[in-house]
Amino acid sequence: MNYFKSIYNSAWRILIIVAVLLQVSLMPLDFLFNLRGLEWYKTLDLIISVLYFLDLIVNILRYRGIKSHAFLKDVYWDTYSSSKFFVTDLLAILPYAVMFSNPVFQLFRLFKWVRVIRTTRYFQIRNLRYSTGISVGLLWIGAFLFSHWFACIWIQIHGMEASLTKVDNYVRALYYTVTTLTSVGYGDVVPHGNAEMLYNIFLQFIGVGFLALLVGNVVSIFTRKDPAEQRFLENMEKLRALIHYQHISKDLEHRISDYFTYERKQKLGYDETELMEALPFGLRNELQLEFKKNIIKDIPLFESVDDHFVRDIAQYLSPKILTPGNYLFRIGDSASSMFFVQKGSLKVLSADESKQLTLLKKGDFMGEIALFKKTTRTATVKSVGYSDLYELQKKEFDKVLKMYPEIAEKIRLKSKSRQERYM
Amino acid sequence: MNYFKSIYNSAWRILIIVAVLLQVSLMPLDFLFNLRGLEWYKTLDLIISVLYFLDLIVNILRYRGIKSHAFLKDVYWDTYSSSKFFVTDLLAILPYAVMFSNPVFQLFRLFKWVRVIRTTRYFQIRNLRYSTGISVGLLWIGAFLFSHWFACIWIQIHGMEASLTKVDNYVRALYYTVTTLTSVGYGDVVPHGNAEMLYNIFLQFIGVGFLALLVGNVVSIFTRKDPAEQRFLENMEKLRALIHYQHISKDLEHRISDYFTYERKQKLGYDETELMEALPFGLRNELQLEFKKNIIKDIPLFESVDDHFVRDIAQYLSPKILTPGNYLFRIGDSASSMFFVQKGSLKVLSADESKQLTLLKKGDFMGEIALFKKTTRTATVKSVGYSDLYELQKKEFDKVLKMYPEIAEKIRLKSKSRQERYM
Amino acid sequence: MNYFKSIYNSAWRILIIVAVLLQVSLMPLDFLFNLRGLEWYKTLDLIISVLYFLDLIVNILRYRGIKSHAFLKDVYWDTYSSSKFFVTDLLAILPYAVMFSNPVFQLFRLFKWVRVIRTTRYFQIRNLRYSTGISVGLLWIGAFLFSHWFACIWIQIHGMEASLTKVDNYVRALYYTVTTLTSVGYGDVVPHGNAEMLYNIFLQFIGVGFLALLVGNVVSIFTRKDPAEQRFLENMEKLRALIHYQHISKDLEHRISDYFTYERKQKLGYDETELMEALPFGLRNELQLEFKKNIIKDIPLFESVDDHFVRDIAQYLSPKILTPGNYLFRIGDSASSMFFVQKGSLKVLSADESKQLTLLKKGDFMGEIALFKKTTRTATVKSVGYSDLYELQKKEFDKVLKMYPEIAEKIRLKSKSRQERYM
Amino acid sequence: MNYFKSIYNSAWRILIIVAVLLQVSLMPLDFLFNLRGLEWYKTLDLIISVLYFLDLIVNILRYRGIKSHAFLKDVYWDTYSSSKFFVTDLLAILPYAVMFSNPVFQLFRLFKWVRVIRTTRYFQIRNLRYSTGISVGLLWIGAFLFSHWFACIWIQIHGMEASLTKVDNYVRALYYTVTTLTSVGYGDVVPHGNAEMLYNIFLQFIGVGFLALLVGNVVSIFTRKDPAEQRFLENMEKLRALIHYQHISKDLEHRISDYFTYERKQKLGYDETELMEALPFGLRNELQLEFKKNIIKDIPLFESVDDHFVRDIAQYLSPKILTPGNYLFRIGDSASSMFFVQKGSLKVLSADESKQLTLLKKGDFMGEIALFKKTTRTATVKSVGYSDLYELQKKEFDKVLKMYPEIAEKIRLKSKSRQERYM
Repeated sequence: MNYFKSIYNSAWRILIIVAVLLQVSLMPLDFLFNLRGLEWYKTLDLIISVLYFLDLIVNILRYRGIKSHAFLKDVYWDTYSSSKFFVTDLLAILPYAVMFSNPVFQLFRLFKWVRVIRTTRYFQIRNLRYSTGISVGLLWIGAFLFSHWFACIWIQIHGMEASLTKVDNYVRALYYTVTTLTSVGYGDVVPHGNAEMLYNIFLQFIGVGFLALLVGNVVSIFTRKDPAEQRFLENMEKLRALIHYQHISKDLEHRISDYFTYERKQKLGYDETELMEALPFGLRNELQLEFKKNIIKDIPLFESVDDHFVRDIAQYLSPKILTPGNYLFRIGDSASSMFFVQKGSLKVLSADESKQLTLLKKGDFMGEIALFKKTTRTATVKSVGYSDLYELQKKEFDKVLKMYPEIAEKIRLKSKSRQERYM
Repeated sequence: MNYFKSIYNSAWRILIIVAVLLQVSLMPLDFLFNLRGLEWYKTLDLIISVLYFLDLIVNILRYRGIKSHAFLKDVYWDTYSSSKFFVTDLLAILPYAVMFSNPVFQLFRLFKWVRVIRTTRYFQIRNLRYSTGISVGLLWIGAFLFSHWFACIWIQIHGMEASLTKVDNYVRALYYTVTTLTSVGYGDVVPHGNAEMLYNIFLQFIGVGFLALLVGNVVSIFTRKDPAEQRFLENMEKLRALIHYQHISKDLEHRISDYFTYERKQKLGYDETELMEALPFGLRNELQLEFKKNIIKDIPLFESVDDHFVRDIAQYLSPKILTPGNYLFRIGDSASSMFFVQKGSLKVLSADESKQLTLLKKGDFMGEIALFKKTTRTATVKSVGYSDLYELQKKEFDKVLKMYPEIAEKIRLKSKSRQERYM
Repeated sequence: MNYFKSIYNSAWRILIIVAVLLQVSLMPLDFLFNLRGLEWYKTLDLIISVLYFLDLIVNILRYRGIKSHAFLKDVYWDTYSSSKFFVTDLLAILPYAVMFSNPVFQLFRLFKWVRVIRTTRYFQIRNLRYSTGISVGLLWIGAFLFSHWFACIWIQIHGMEASLTKVDNYVRALYYTVTTLTSVGYGDVVPHGNAEMLYNIFLQFIGVGFLALLVGNVVSIFTRKDPAEQRFLENMEKLRALIHYQHISKDLEHRISDYFTYERKQKLGYDETELMEALPFGLRNELQLEFKKNIIKDIPLFESVDDHFVRDIAQYLSPKILTPGNYLFRIGDSASSMFFVQKGSLKVLSADESKQLTLLKKGDFMGEIALFKKTTRTATVKSVGYSDLYELQKKEFDKVLKMYPEIAEKIRLKSKSRQERYM
Repeated sequence: MNYFKSIYNSAWRILIIVAVLLQVSLMPLDFLFNLRGLEWYKTLDLIISVLYFLDLIVNILRYRGIKSHAFLKDVYWDTYSSSKFFVTDLLAILPYAVMFSNPVFQLFRLFKWVRVIRTTRYFQIRNLRYSTGISVGLLWIGAFLFSHWFACIWIQIHGMEASLTKVDNYVRALYYTVTTLTSVGYGDVVPHGNAEMLYNIFLQFIGVGFLALLVGNVVSIFTRKDPAEQRFLENMEKLRALIHYQHISKDLEHRISDYFTYERKQKLGYDETELMEALPFGLRNELQLEFKKNIIKDIPLFESVDDHFVRDIAQYLSPKILTPGNYLFRIGDSASSMFFVQKGSLKVLSADESKQLTLLKKGDFMGEIALFKKTTRTATVKSVGYSDLYELQKKEFDKVLKMYPEIAEKIRLKSKSRQERYM
């Protein structure tokens, strides 16, 4: 997908939204103050008509383009599929002259509202990161638009007050409407007569519903948390409960909360396996490759291997975290896997831990003899701070290496030279 | 179950609800303005009495009918079981003359309210699709009815204002009540004297409770989502979190979100197995059959098979989705199942993928030799766009075919002719 | 636990609550209107003092009683354990004369409030069924008490209006306070001067907090549902989603929703195993026995067995539901368990289902030969309506019967006579 | 971590928060009433400048300190990592003279607000127990600060009323603002003119948003419960449902609810295994040791064992609860584990339960012969009240003892002398 094309596409969609919002806002003012007599309104309306027409063309073209890609057709069927949307869009751009001949025809333009909803949904799905922001924004735009429309209806019912200018009348009506909808109700502007009172009762019920909707929305935003954040909070909650019930030394408490903080900061806080389970085999494989490709490429051992090998080995690397001072393994432990340092540093120690043989850093690997023969660890490895590693089990490595004998040989040589270094 | 009978049944229930609502709304007005002196009110009351009487008859008949069906009796025991409901219904249609002799007897009619609640519940269960709509509708009707009653009580306490007509008095009281209940409180109509103030305090507390109830309801509606939609949102949320923590190419991100969109649009988004687990064996079997019957009938291989075979094979078909470009299998893979294309298209390719042997579409099947002998795949099959397939494992197929030897023979012949076509 | 003792206990607790509520309500009025000059207030205060004193005695006695039962001491440690509660109770019943000498000493009586909270909690745990009702009741009592206190403080700040009686002043203050707390705010009574305005600002914030608390409470009550009801709703929701995505015949849809309705009506909707998992072995066993004891006793086969047998067999009976028309088993199925009819009726049919051999009802049992020898079913059994059965597997039955050889013999004889009846 | 250092650290952070809050509150008043002419304001501002400067130094030092500990660097990277925070802090303490030359420069001080947020977060994580309290406190401080700022803006728009003092003007403005934000809206102070009305509309929308936020927060606090409390409530809910559906004797109901109450009171209500699963191996081990170390040390059998043994045995002790009257085991049961009494008392009984051989209390152990040879229980043990025990399986004990032969011998001797006592 072309990046610039995507930018143009988004810009166009936003332009149409702005046009629709402008139209929808001006429409009731036109009914009240007969804006269609003004030159600027005529020009604006013409521009909007042209935009709507262009949008219709764009949509048809986009739909055609999608249609030619068999597999995308299924996905975007809704963007312009049913003739229903086509008809509403067509009605929304009725010839300019027709629209102006009778103000009621202007109402057809409201059909274009459907486009705003569809576009918002499109943006929410495409720009996942900002979807909460889009929800909140939409809520406020909706609240303002409704207030505006209700204010205009109020002017229609109440009539204009002659002593005030048009702008004053409008602001007063908006003030009255918002005061009612938010249930503030100062009482300096109040309804008189049955019609006004009944409209007011209607407005109050709407206001209560709006409030309930808003609260419901905010509550659902509150509960829709970043999974990693949520996991962090849950873990802290558990720790808090534990402290409440049992005595734990301050030091251990701090070390545990440090660990959870670390887990959240790093990629580790978010467990991608859950997402992977929701994907079919093909996509899952690609996603896994995407993560580990760079890690594997960074490992000197695999410097010049081909992509097929990387793809095959990637799925067998399992992540492992060490907290400060933790042992990865000690001399004499039975060995059945090798490790790749992804982050942090680890000390390689002699049997009595008195001598530091070497320090392993990002890109280093260790324990590789375990992949070639049944053996025990010949050194002790201890993490300095937090360390992220990838572990590769002998049995899985064997499966892959069977298909790439030349790489197997290379690793065997490299590991030999390293062994001689500090054994 | 007769469809027309169901329509008549629903219409009757709605008619009774309308009658009850009318009655309940007019009752307090009768107390205030002595409507019983008016001819139209008398007539209406008589009609309602007759309707209530007919409803009693209908309920008794319905109950009798249900009673004769042993197994339904358990289920609908509540619709007219206990004599409690019978007595309240009977009181609600006390002879017309008795009702009119003393206004207090009219209050017995409120017993009929129980019927509205039971009917609403009936509709919610029967018309699952609209149950949220029914909830919201009920909430608003309830809110209006309560406001109406409280307004009438207010008139009773406050007295009529002589300078205003009856209608004006009522609208003013309703306006005052709604203003209080929604906590808008303009202050142009305020209580005077202790009685009015105490009633007002009561109203305000009711109003706050109503608000809390409304919000609670809206929140619970917000959280009660279509399982498929919910699954889609959760998946997108996970994807969003992943993007936040780790770099993923825009292309892969789009392909994943395309997949989730596809999954929701198709039946796949909703996993029926969860429902099936809640059902006892008999119903589960029938439901499964209902889904797959048409699929199996559409497959040319099973054109003239009998229903027993379809029923038996249905439970062994497991669904499988392929994303665009995915391989179903490649030449040389070991083969132990056959596939039925339910949707989409797949290319059958030669060993080096240079030649397209054929294109499989809805109703086509492949890999059927795997059902008859231990073999490997003799072609490569790759999905063009998204494809939905059903897989049938050899071991399960064997179980069924043992019972239907003549169908086994037919499939063996068909598959042979196909193999010759492109092998 | 003695039932009457429990009634007296509850009555006493409620009496104390009423006394505390009365005290707490009158206390601010005493400060404002100097009620201590009135004879009835003096008498009431004396009675309350005596009640508090008696309550102290009762609590000490109860605590003593609990102490003597080693195992209850742990559980009710909190009801009167710490000396903290003892001291507050003691302060609350400071000698009558001391209390009256200085109004500030009256405030010690507020300590008694702790007792109300503890008692409410006690009732919520003991009367589980009404705990939601108690919560809501408490919320409203709390709301009224707070309004009352804030109203009294308002009078203190604002001063009494000379033109009005004491009662009028109080009602007006209460009206003003409630109007503010519920955020209605008519504006006919407004604060003047900085002190009143600041108090008012404080009240408004309290009001908003109260509203939030109320909504939070209502939402949590809304979400706290009867597990059986919740299970029913979830199942219906799943069914609704299924209908939305896939075509299902109206008939099957109704049969499924009938099943869920049945499941909720019967005990079946609630799965007690979940509760059992939360219990330690001893209690779990007793609970299981409680359920099935009567069922087993009702079965003629076990008429005169001893309690030990019932206890041992109870844990091996597993429930089974049949929908209308379902087969329990057919002639020729391999047999390894017997069944006890708990509810409903089942037809015993001949091989071709043309002849109904007998009809099984509550208390009947069938398939018992399966418990004594490896065999196949010799009849077909089909459920008429919904049926609830208990199943007993041969292997578990054998375990129990080994310990009760005389009962084994009795069942063998009974089952023989039945076989002869319709075989 | 040094305890006093931690106290100083917290005190300093709180001091800075107070300084920022003071600054932020006074800033708008300075704009309105030109406080910078007053001597005390100048002095205060100078003190705050100095505090900010010191805080900058403290932060740099803290960051340096952290940097030297490789593993903490990762965790606290955010506290002062990015230069972004450094720049904002630097701007916030722009030289005193510069700040005063132009009031707009004062706005840079708002950058210091970031520090408040970061510190609050720090406190929430470090003082888990009070995190809900901190949230609520922050909410109210935020609400007050916003009201204060909006009130100041209102004075700016509305102008000062000459007839009132500065303080009166401010209180009136605050009163008006709060009245609007809480949606009380008395109507005694109302906006006049378009500017005021539009500002008012803005305020009303803010108020509704604030309300929704508050409710969302309260709901989320309501749902964020102590896991042990939540578990207790869920269990009681299940019990309540069971009682609703099936008849249970009052006695059994009370015994079950007693059990749940006991479970909550004791540490048992909270299952630490869930937390442990979230920890990496190293921390998990340490946490387990922390719990059981004291228990093991209290057992006379292990009086003088070394720490390594304790560490190794700790992970194999699994907790077990007995309800009153429960049997731990009976004579003749096959024996494969020993028990340590952690709490409560148990009777050791003869075969016919007629004779009490001994009473086991905290620190006692039993069944230890099971660890040395395959045998059956030689006594019956029954719990008096509730008892908490730890169980040690033979197979796990063997693993540990292999490494500590001298301790094995000691236990064998001790257990022998005990056996002789009551066998």
